[in-house]
Amino acid sequence: MYRKSLADQECSIARALDVVGEWWTLLILRDAFRGVHRFDDFLTSLGIARNVLTVRLAKLVEHDILERRPLAGHAGRHEYRLTDKGRDLQPVLLALLRWGDRWTAEDGEPPVVLDHTGCGHDADPRLVCGHCGGELHPGNVRRRASEVAETG
Amino acid sequence: MYRKSLADQECSIARALDVVGEWWTLLILRDAFRGVHRFDDFLTSLGIARNVLTVRLAKLVEHDILERRPLAGHAGRHEYRLTDKGRDLQPVLLALLRWGDRWTAEDGEPPVVLDHTGCGHDADPRLVCGHCGGELHPGNVRRRASEVAETG
Repeated sequence: MYRKSLADQECSIARALDVVGEWWTLLILRDAFRGVHRFDDFLTSLGIARNVLTVRLAKLVEHDILERRPLAGHAGRHEYRLTDKGRDLQPVLLALLRWGDRWTAEDGEPPVVLDHTGCGHDADPRLVCGHCGGELHPGNVRRRASEVAETG
Repeated sequence: MYRKSLADQECSIARALDVVGEWWTLLILRDAFRGVHRFDDFLTSLGIARNVLTVRLAKLVEHDILERRPLAGHAGRHEYRLTDKGRDLQPVLLALLRWGDRWTAEDGEPPVVLDHTGCGHDADPRLVCGHCGGELHPGNVRRRASEVAETG
């Protein structure tokens, strides 16, 4: 299927998907958050084809989501580390995780539970308003065009 | 590119991506949240090929994310409405929107601002712990296998 580039759409969701809206990309990032940093480890963890992984990693480096840097003590080898831009994608993955836990888990039990080490309890991630802290849901969020564009 | 099914992976992120981890799927849902409900309106809004849209909508109906129902007053025509399972994907879209606003907006200004009608201010969505309300970030979330699986 031909993939139309969404980067020029006046919509941050479309632009975000243009960079990370691909299955493998998000699973590579999931693994990076879990501590996978080397090409061969991604290969093993994901069961992905070598050429696909090469292309995906290059795109993530190109977009400054992963940083490719020499692996200490291994001449000629590299590792991939999340940048600030990459680490800022964690809410996307946590939101996917929460939805998957709720709607796709077999036996009604999610395979993984998230602990919030800050308080020691299940994290049970919620999306809230940064101003008042109230939980956001479709009924209480309204889109408003900024001065830059009339539609998003 | 061959798409390996991720549905059988013991990971809610992989399972979630298996259902919604496709560009068009998430953009169809974005439009549904914005009030687009008819086939022709999705077609116009997305600039997507008719056959691709047909397949994507059918998958979303199959997975109970959209409901296809007769359009009142238009014999033989249908509309697509978000189910509870579909509406529960809003945090994923909001998390993508926030990231796109922050990292892909041109001129540093997001094209769309979200209002939280509950408090009347910019929503500026944040992901927080459902137990203590503290903001979640990569440094304070730890994965723990539930009793169902040892790895996720």
